[in-house]
Amino acid sequence: MLENESTERDERFMREAIKEAYKAAHKLEVPVGAVVVQGEEVIGRGHNLRERLFDPTAHAEILALREAALRLGSWRLNECTLYVTMEPCPMCAGAAIQGRVGRIVYGAPDPKAGAAGSCVDLLGETCFNHRVEVTGGVLGEKCAHIVQEFFRRLRSGE
Amino acid sequence: MLENESTERDERFMREAIKEAYKAAHKLEVPVGAVVVQGEEVIGRGHNLRERLFDPTAHAEILALREAALRLGSWRLNECTLYVTMEPCPMCAGAAIQGRVGRIVYGAPDPKAGAAGSCVDLLGETCFNHRVEVTGGVLGEKCAHIVQEFFRRLRSGE
Repeated sequence: MLENESTERDERFMREAIKEAYKAAHKLEVPVGAVVVQGEEVIGRGHNLRERLFDPTAHAEILALREAALRLGSWRLNECTLYVTMEPCPMCAGAAIQGRVGRIVYGAPDPKAGAAGSCVDLLGETCFNHRVEVTGGVLGEKCAHIVQEFFRRLRSGE
Repeated sequence: MLENESTERDERFMREAIKEAYKAAHKLEVPVGAVVVQGEEVIGRGHNLRERLFDPTAHAEILALREAALRLGSWRLNECTLYVTMEPCPMCAGAAIQGRVGRIVYGAPDPKAGAAGSCVDLLGETCFNHRVEVTGGVLGEKCAHIVQEFFRRLRSGE
């Protein structure tokens, strides 16, 4: 596959994840969004709803993975790619491993909690029974800007 | 606190987690159980329901943490202890970090996926904004036996 084709496709689905991030921002949740893609179809969507659902596990990725698995009628998501605007935390990276997700594409790195190398490299570990392919930095500046802008507005009381 | 008192208390709540593991076994799910305890009260219970719910995140710990947080009306579980029959995987250890759980007590180690030192030491990492205290091996032989017996019966077609 040509690299440009791969990038264009990844950017297209990352824009879907970004739409989800904006939904979180509108609900005053930290704006992270995710979609699960199989073939050319989005089969799961999610945005962070931790505050609204009183649920520490209600990250964008978890909600998107659960929706996708329910739709497929199987917890096995081998053929799927998870697109998420921020580098996943260990819980979400672990959920992708549990779901046998084929690939993760993320936008901005998360130096505070990222599990794709920024804080720990869970996705690079060889001891698990499944390995997830990882691509980072897709529309990364845009994804980071959404979070930065959210916190700037929160601080300034806008 | 006297060590014996601590152990007796931990064993008491681990027996509640074991009850949950048996519920999973009866549903032909890998028998892992968990409870979340605040003070002297069990405020969340869960057993593995991955197959039945078509949900890669439906591990005992995740379900117990979600129930506890919903009951408290907050994703912050600082005052809580998570009891689980098996060493948590990275997803579940990560969920405990996300939920700011005070302490994890587990039964049997999991050499294949354990995130409390067996496979990775996620709970020993210092880079996250929360650290969970960990105690392992509480009624460990009993907890391991439940899983071994489950797979033995599955293989023999009993």
